[in-house]
Amino acid sequence: MTHIAIIGAGLIGRGWAFVFARAGTEVRVWDPQPAVLDRLPDDIAGMVEQTAPFGQAGTDPEATAARIRAVTTPEEALDGAALAQESGPEVLDTKRALFARLDAIAAPETILASSSSALMASRFAGELPGRARCLVGHPVNPPHLVPVVEIAPAPFTDPAVTERARAIYAAAGQVPVVLQREIDGFILNRLQAVVLAESLRLIEQGYVDVRGLDDTIRHGLGRRWAFMGPMETINLNAPGGAGDYLTRYGAMMAGLAQGAAREEAFTPAVAAIVGAAFADVSAPETVRARQNWRDAELAALAQHLAARAQHDNAQE
Amino acid sequence: MTHIAIIGAGLIGRGWAFVFARAGTEVRVWDPQPAVLDRLPDDIAGMVEQTAPFGQAGTDPEATAARIRAVTTPEEALDGAALAQESGPEVLDTKRALFARLDAIAAPETILASSSSALMASRFAGELPGRARCLVGHPVNPPHLVPVVEIAPAPFTDPAVTERARAIYAAAGQVPVVLQREIDGFILNRLQAVVLAESLRLIEQGYVDVRGLDDTIRHGLGRRWAFMGPMETINLNAPGGAGDYLTRYGAMMAGLAQGAAREEAFTPAVAAIVGAAFADVSAPETVRARQNWRDAELAALAQHLAARAQHDNAQE
Repeated sequence: MTHIAIIGAGLIGRGWAFVFARAGTEVRVWDPQPAVLDRLPDDIAGMVEQTAPFGQAGTDPEATAARIRAVTTPEEALDGAALAQESGPEVLDTKRALFARLDAIAAPETILASSSSALMASRFAGELPGRARCLVGHPVNPPHLVPVVEIAPAPFTDPAVTERARAIYAAAGQVPVVLQREIDGFILNRLQAVVLAESLRLIEQGYVDVRGLDDTIRHGLGRRWAFMGPMETINLNAPGGAGDYLTRYGAMMAGLAQGAAREEAFTPAVAAIVGAAFADVSAPETVRARQNWRDAELAALAQHLAARAQHDNAQE
Repeated sequence: MTHIAIIGAGLIGRGWAFVFARAGTEVRVWDPQPAVLDRLPDDIAGMVEQTAPFGQAGTDPEATAARIRAVTTPEEALDGAALAQESGPEVLDTKRALFARLDAIAAPETILASSSSALMASRFAGELPGRARCLVGHPVNPPHLVPVVEIAPAPFTDPAVTERARAIYAAAGQVPVVLQREIDGFILNRLQAVVLAESLRLIEQGYVDVRGLDDTIRHGLGRRWAFMGPMETINLNAPGGAGDYLTRYGAMMAGLAQGAAREEAFTPAVAAIVGAAFADVSAPETVRARQNWRDAELAALAQHLAARAQHDNAQE
């Protein structure tokens, strides 16, 4: 494969660079801020150090780092790239301007993918001459430790581009999920939004405290969702599978969903309650230290799940 | 501790028996169906065989099994029990009748806890002379592999009973979450219900297929939710913590929640789509085989998470 261009070297952009480099692909990284590019080698070294003990830095961690190269212009990044992964700020006008610039520079065969977490490609690429090679490839933070990538093509995206993007992400070891229709928030953040709304409501109305809410997911639903989704979960919760489950429990679940919170759950009052519950982890340094803990846990979990998948395959 | 009484020896009741026996407590199991009790030793032996390789059958797996004893009357099960865990059918009239019977038999100091997954104690214990020692202790299936237990006291439950139940579950190694107010569906199933409603809608309206939906959770959100809840997740997704997150992204998330599906998402049409996606795992034997896979994955994950917790504690 030709190289991958990374546009924007923040947390997400660096994670993407690591994903492709770890899989053996050359990566060129550009960021409009020179200071960010200056820090890149140290940042990548830190990622290698954190992930290598869990087998998440590729077969040769030093080679992974060596494949990532900072460049000083977007032209240099894009020249001959199979795919450019844009990971700039989640601001519509900024993304519009950046995509116009990338589209003017890039060769027609270069795929332009945005890491946007909620904005559809229709909103920022619809006016471009090269809009047929534009789409969203939404990762989770950090991409090198959480493998899903939501591929959201716009109605104007060439289906062959969508398929090439899918194949590129899959070859790099990610798990691509291709949306069949565009929707704001895609799938992941829509599901996260309903969980947040109902969680915030239950906390604000005094049914449960912040820690109890987190424990219910962490020591309950999250145990299953780490290795199977909600649809397979219900398929195993009735003797006759998902259809049987929905016959038995659908009305009860529908009743609970009917009374669920929406937009109105996001109040300043509940933000204060949740903020107070994490008062000891709310300054940038302490948040960063805890993010490091999270990333180590994600790396350990990735190693565990990979070992289990290998075990299951060996048994088949 | 005195012994624990298990009332109802289906999947949930057996899981509870295993939880307490593994922690070193004697357990007496009664079920109205003699055939269920006859099978109990074999069922427990199967649970030992599955969980011992992952360190989830206690320090001495044979002793765990030996602590579980079937008894032929509820009187024998309850006599001197610290807590009776009722795990009968999720049918209101059945639960009402069973609780009336248990309340008439049990000594006043025995706690009567129901495994009900959605029915509040107010609905089935409110008329009983001993209602002050009644509450819900809702586990997840199977309780010995998913540690959360939602403790939902009714307004009439003695707070000292709630605290004793909490201590008993915690001493057995479960993670108790005490609800501060009663609500149908408690916390876990309310959160599951909103995820199901939005998932089913996104599938039926053709945004994503069943497998893509599951992948989004399994390889995305579920990676975090296996070791931290949604509130800590957002606390780490902005430099200034949860308050900062809700300021930056609250409006976007609120907008996504506003458009979320409710009751109307549970249609026969989508049940058919989801059922078809699992057509190869929908007969009782194949579902049971896949449940065994799930339980092995849960046991392996429990072992992994316990090792990580030990590692984190050692570092502090």
